[in-house]
Amino acid sequence: MAGARARVIFRQLFDLESYTYTYLLGCPKTRAAIIIDPVDTQVERDVRMAKELDLNLIYAMNTHVHADHVTGTGILKNLTGCKSVISKTSGAKADVLVNDGEKIDFGDQALEVRSTPGHTNGCLTYVNHADRIVFTGDALLIRACGRTDFQEGNPETLYDSVRSRILSLPEDYMLYPAHDYNGVTSTTVGEELKHNPRLTKSKEEFVQIMEALGLTRPAKMDVAVPLNIMCGPSQLGESQQRMDK
Amino acid sequence: MAGARARVIFRQLFDLESYTYTYLLGCPKTRAAIIIDPVDTQVERDVRMAKELDLNLIYAMNTHVHADHVTGTGILKNLTGCKSVISKTSGAKADVLVNDGEKIDFGDQALEVRSTPGHTNGCLTYVNHADRIVFTGDALLIRACGRTDFQEGNPETLYDSVRSRILSLPEDYMLYPAHDYNGVTSTTVGEELKHNPRLTKSKEEFVQIMEALGLTRPAKMDVAVPLNIMCGPSQLGESQQRMDK
Repeated sequence: MAGARARVIFRQLFDLESYTYTYLLGCPKTRAAIIIDPVDTQVERDVRMAKELDLNLIYAMNTHVHADHVTGTGILKNLTGCKSVISKTSGAKADVLVNDGEKIDFGDQALEVRSTPGHTNGCLTYVNHADRIVFTGDALLIRACGRTDFQEGNPETLYDSVRSRILSLPEDYMLYPAHDYNGVTSTTVGEELKHNPRLTKSKEEFVQIMEALGLTRPAKMDVAVPLNIMCGPSQLGESQQRMDK
Repeated sequence: MAGARARVIFRQLFDLESYTYTYLLGCPKTRAAIIIDPVDTQVERDVRMAKELDLNLIYAMNTHVHADHVTGTGILKNLTGCKSVISKTSGAKADVLVNDGEKIDFGDQALEVRSTPGHTNGCLTYVNHADRIVFTGDALLIRACGRTDFQEGNPETLYDSVRSRILSLPEDYMLYPAHDYNGVTSTTVGEELKHNPRLTKSKEEFVQIMEALGLTRPAKMDVAVPLNIMCGPSQLGESQQRMDK
């Protein structure tokens, strides 16, 4: 905490229904803030948190088009006037479409955009080099990774993405995924290089593991994906109405 | 992250059933580690995490005698040879009984013990001054506080404890509670001084709020408290057997 540079304001938030982590990051000097992977049903909590921290939300960003929950981005735009952000490759609608290598500034703080396809084509990883923290979306999960059996999923592409764009970072970088199902909140590059049961294998073994997972379809997928491709509903409760139909 | 002193290794863990946060802290130099408020059903995860981080668990500590979940301390003792720690005032059995003002060392790292009664008589808050992080147990929760309607609970005592021993710390100190029910993972002294809906009130108003809560009894209380007063069962699955009876 010591030192000349003020560290980024950082809060990890969890959605107990979809097991999704949402991240709020703010510039301690200008109070400009971003939110990564907000969940529609948690938007009131997230807006209250930003307000209580005296933060001004300028971007609501997604790591990718989620299939397991509905994004809160559209509602956040309506409530706060922030802009939505997603990768150009995702094919989704947003105010700002970003590409690999670009930088997202919020006040004196910044995130580097890294393209990490394989779970979906448009998956991004956001890197805060100043504080050595990384938001991996579903590309890399703690001791796991995103599934590759739908939505343009491709295990070979995912393997290459994670090895070359995430696990190539310094070993002490903290990794924050979009989900965890075991109550674990973070990991590091060093830990995953040693202990990830999938990514420590050869590419051939990784592909075999991914092809043998036999997962069921996410329950909300048919509602979530069409909404998320538009960066989510613009009103609270809208996705629930669609699910009730 | 920069600077001469290595920061403490720190992992926040969550139990999705009881909404309990468990904390693993380790010394980066000696690898000595402690765990705060482990949950019996999560012990395998916690031991694996310590092992993967190359940490040697020396203490399993409780902030207090919990009523809402069964502590993993006894099982951890059996599995790792660590010592159990709780406050002397709690009346509970443990290898090490600590008092207000004492210091708990693990390698080059340390926690200050602060007595913060009110939820129970034996409630402790553990402060890591080097990294400015605080483990408040159930004394202070995020925008809330522990209940005061059983187990020696006393709202006036709790108000004095929290105001004088926790919220008197510098405003940037990060606070980590034993529970959160809204997916929020941390707070700061500054935030709670401004936004805690109970602790920002006068003592008289606080007492009125606490007496009007009308909470139901924790479902596991009759099993949890007798086990936790002994620092938990010594075998995995033992508390489940007692509940099944």
